Amino acid sequence: MVSPTAAPVTFAILATDGAARAGVLSTPHGAVPTPAFMAVATLGGLKGPTVQQAEELGQGVILGNTYHLALRPGAERVRRLGGLHRFCGWRGPMLTDSGGYQVFSLAANRTITDDGVAFRNHLDGGKLMLTPEESVRIQRLLGADILMAFDECPAADSSRDYVEACNRRTALWLARSVAAWKAPGEYGGAAEQALYAIIQGGLHRDLREASLADALTHDLPGYAVGGLSVGESADDRNRVLDWICPHMPVERPRYLMGVGTPLDLIEGVARGIDQFDCVLPTRMGRHGTAYTDGGPLRLKRQEFADDGAPIDDTPSPAARVSRGYLNHLLKSGEILGGILLSLHNLAYYRRLMARTRAAIRAGRFAAFADAFRAGYRDPEPGDQRPGPGPDPDRVERPAP
Amino acid sequence: MVSPTAAPVTFAILATDGAARAGVLSTPHGAVPTPAFMAVATLGGLKGPTVQQAEELGQGVILGNTYHLALRPGAERVRRLGGLHRFCGWRGPMLTDSGGYQVFSLAANRTITDDGVAFRNHLDGGKLMLTPEESVRIQRLLGADILMAFDECPAADSSRDYVEACNRRTALWLARSVAAWKAPGEYGGAAEQALYAIIQGGLHRDLREASLADALTHDLPGYAVGGLSVGESADDRNRVLDWICPHMPVERPRYLMGVGTPLDLIEGVARGIDQFDCVLPTRMGRHGTAYTDGGPLRLKRQEFADDGAPIDDTPSPAARVSRGYLNHLLKSGEILGGILLSLHNLAYYRRLMARTRAAIRAGRFAAFADAFRAGYRDPEPGDQRPGPGPDPDRVERPAP
Repeated sequence: MVSPTAAPVTFAILATDGAARAGVLSTPHGAVPTPAFMAVATLGGLKGPTVQQAEELGQGVILGNTYHLALRPGAERVRRLGGLHRFCGWRGPMLTDSGGYQVFSLAANRTITDDGVAFRNHLDGGKLMLTPEESVRIQRLLGADILMAFDECPAADSSRDYVEACNRRTALWLARSVAAWKAPGEYGGAAEQALYAIIQGGLHRDLREASLADALTHDLPGYAVGGLSVGESADDRNRVLDWICPHMPVERPRYLMGVGTPLDLIEGVARGIDQFDCVLPTRMGRHGTAYTDGGPLRLKRQEFADDGAPIDDTPSPAARVSRGYLNHLLKSGEILGGILLSLHNLAYYRRLMARTRAAIRAGRFAAFADAFRAGYRDPEPGDQRPGPGPDPDRVERPAP
Repeated sequence: MVSPTAAPVTFAILATDGAARAGVLSTPHGAVPTPAFMAVATLGGLKGPTVQQAEELGQGVILGNTYHLALRPGAERVRRLGGLHRFCGWRGPMLTDSGGYQVFSLAANRTITDDGVAFRNHLDGGKLMLTPEESVRIQRLLGADILMAFDECPAADSSRDYVEACNRRTALWLARSVAAWKAPGEYGGAAEQALYAIIQGGLHRDLREASLADALTHDLPGYAVGGLSVGESADDRNRVLDWICPHMPVERPRYLMGVGTPLDLIEGVARGIDQFDCVLPTRMGRHGTAYTDGGPLRLKRQEFADDGAPIDDTPSPAARVSRGYLNHLLKSGEILGGILLSLHNLAYYRRLMARTRAAIRAGRFAAFADAFRAGYRDPEPGDQRPGPGPDPDRVERPAP
């Protein structure tokens, strides 16, 4: 089904090593090497770092959230102010999600029909109706380089019947998302923006394969694996990737949504994933955790109070100060502590992806991944996952 | 009484225009042009901006707080970690206050004797004793370029008798501060660090003159006007400066402590002040206010929601985005909004001081100041003052 695409977004593979791939994703706002980690800018800004700081770190793609931007400040307002790039000052590539994740994360506040999802919004309880057409309309107004199809993301503990129902709606909504993306319109659309399909199917092999087959009935610029990082174990997640990655189109970028820790990223790259996004670097940074090759460091702990060493050798604004200073800022509740750790974590993730690319190009990715797995220790892995509930970084609380 | 000093800190006047002066303050960590605004880094970090961002803005001096750093993380710990410069990563000039301001701001939690001040600290109610000797010992451990003498700062509504008592203790404590600064010791002291005296005396002309006369019995590298920005009116403050600035040593830097708004700074420069510090740029920025030549803009107001213009023409990271975007971040509670406004305000203050220097050198300061006064409008000036109570930026709350 899949044939070469033209602009706006193209993907080229430069090297492979086992299932891992090193490539380049080209967009109207610049090209980024893959595997790539995309930073989350829910409301059109990273939580702390400025766009200039993100540029200096070498951040490739940033990601805005359709549901949240539709509520505040509203897609029409963003368009009046020049579109999301100009609005937030980001000059590089940008992706917007579709709102499908909120079908999961705001489960207590929405009603699903085949038409779409009616949300009682988390801010004031007002109604927000998202359909495939409305999600794509909003994303066209926002003007990111990559749009996501509207999907239904089931929770990890959903029944098989419910996951099947999600698959059916995801396929139905994908066809309608594609039509809305291709339709003529005043803003955006297929001539300027890429659309990625999202594969659902929970932890069921046949349902994952069926969802992939549905997605592949559309020749699209990219394909995403959704419905993970919703409370399942890392083993379950990796198993899903083992099932479906070999059947995803080789020549299209593969985006694993909402994942994850540094180790999760290595496991994804090992299975052929090209793009990732996650709130962990900024959220965990804000809460006092720095990622390193040895695992996460909880810098608020007293053991770091007199530690004169920097976090590690990652170049970032945090490299100029010691763990002891960061411990002091965190214990004192100074926001600078969380900002410095967010900058470190974003820089660490970016460099980790650069190291995977170098290892793939050198044909030594398996050894790199093995060494990484052996060195990475997380004494409290449960601390790090967004978990099955609403993600606080997406500012979602049920309306009163 | 005053004769030329050698290093560590020297001051040279390059131009004068009326009472206003343009000069250079040279320290072991670099020289800064004056008039200069110093940014407040209470606990060893600005509230949001990194030291790299402050450098990029051209920030000259930053200021740490002895009382707060003594409590957290402790002066000995800062010394073990290399001193305050290395601790926080700041490579430029630095000043530490003496803790005298907390005698005012933590009035409910301290007991004053001629020996010093016993604080019930605002964090856990534990005891912290500050004497002139202890304040200087802490400041020598911290290692800033400029130390402040320990003083007693009376509230604006103090009785004349009480202000006289403060003057007496301030003079007594200055002599002891000078001795502690000159004494041999393992860290810091007069060979490496400058000491400034602080002039008190409230709103009484004779008491201000008496306090200045006391200060001038010591030949010191700088002289500060304290006890202002404690609840008095701008007119009262300017009157105090009119009384004493003409009698301050011409060849020494004059530091107006804790002041103020852009207009307050212009009035200080007009009266011959060389250095200022204030929490307003970062505190008001965090709370949604941007300073401009036209006065403060409260960017959270709905009128800015669709405003596509930048704040003004100040170069800073905020210059890339619109008032509408900042309005959105502030209304959404995103910390990036406050950080961008803090960066703008620090850049605005820095540039305002550069404009005063240019006007002084060109002999047109009076015209510049008149034009500034005519253009600057603050509809809610009461919003902007630290006011008579504890300053939330100094993280002072009475211990339970």
